[in-house]
Amino acid sequence: MTFPELTAAEQRYRTNLINSLHGYKSTALCGTSNAAGVHNLAVISSVFHVGATPPLVGMLMRPHTVARHTLENLRETGCYTLNLLHPAILRQAHQCSASYAEGVSEFTETGLTPVIKNLLAAPYVAESRLQMGLKFVEEYTLRSNSCIVVVGEMVELFCADDAILSDGTIDHHRLETVAASSLDSYNTGVPVAKFTYPKPDTWTMLVSGE
Amino acid sequence: MTFPELTAAEQRYRTNLINSLHGYKSTALCGTSNAAGVHNLAVISSVFHVGATPPLVGMLMRPHTVARHTLENLRETGCYTLNLLHPAILRQAHQCSASYAEGVSEFTETGLTPVIKNLLAAPYVAESRLQMGLKFVEEYTLRSNSCIVVVGEMVELFCADDAILSDGTIDHHRLETVAASSLDSYNTGVPVAKFTYPKPDTWTMLVSGE
Repeated sequence: MTFPELTAAEQRYRTNLINSLHGYKSTALCGTSNAAGVHNLAVISSVFHVGATPPLVGMLMRPHTVARHTLENLRETGCYTLNLLHPAILRQAHQCSASYAEGVSEFTETGLTPVIKNLLAAPYVAESRLQMGLKFVEEYTLRSNSCIVVVGEMVELFCADDAILSDGTIDHHRLETVAASSLDSYNTGVPVAKFTYPKPDTWTMLVSGE
Repeated sequence: MTFPELTAAEQRYRTNLINSLHGYKSTALCGTSNAAGVHNLAVISSVFHVGATPPLVGMLMRPHTVARHTLENLRETGCYTLNLLHPAILRQAHQCSASYAEGVSEFTETGLTPVIKNLLAAPYVAESRLQMGLKFVEEYTLRSNSCIVVVGEMVELFCADDAILSDGTIDHHRLETVAASSLDSYNTGVPVAKFTYPKPDTWTMLVSGE
């Protein structure tokens, strides 16, 4: 399929296609609270790495979806959590995207467990196997479609020690981390290859896999 | 591991950990040309969905890495391509991150094949199974670490028809699409579950999987 055909396609088809274009997407449940202490939980499928020192994480938010509570809350409280998914909590996570009424918490509706820890006023998802706590750093509203890029700094991390390899890399295969590949489809990963650091004068070598 | 331990960890360990935090990352080879027609190819592991109408795609770029040529080129020519990876071209793709000298094309060095098509002055990767052509729309330099968020509009798409499901969703399992999970590790995906559209009054249902 080339682009002119796509433009002519009906809206739902086009939306499905564009939302699944890039392959596997970093996906997490974003936990926030409002000033009154009502917890909110939203699926974010556009989490991206921004920097390691300091540890910065980006995500894209749409202003007009259910995720807008997330945005209002993180602006208000200055913090949020990102909690990775695994198969056993997937149906509950997907259900968090339903348009619940004002003041209703997705935690209550889906049965996922909010946990407030020491540092932040935002709830973690107790069932998640990798939980990050972030301080809101900055945001940019895109001129092209009013979506908002949010950048946060990680200030807390909870992950089982045995899922962190000796070189610091997280073992997502072990954690059964799930990635969205469209609006409604989720996947786990299978390691294919790990390579050496690439240099101009020699070919990168296979460390494991393939 | 919680955060104080992480802060105390040595630099390489911390870099590996933060770069692998979010699980599977949308990864693609970004093809550009400079005004002199020298092609550039860079691995981008922070591609994210921005919007469906118009079809907008975001990516994060670091100004001080080899990817800076990509940035200069796309500013200069106003266009670029994103080409998804599969296992057979993975080693070549990873090798593109080597710091080649000025004026050297990663295509020549890795043996991947540049193809200029009708609409854009940027090269596609012939071996890629899903190729997007984009017009550069806008960019934002992050105050927190000077990384650059680039937003482009897709104007061309090349993908085998039999990898697009009847509802428009791309079948990344069939394409064997690869996602990075760290600086040097790559994975394919396995479908776990597809759900119905979530509504507040009824639980989302499993369409397939699990």
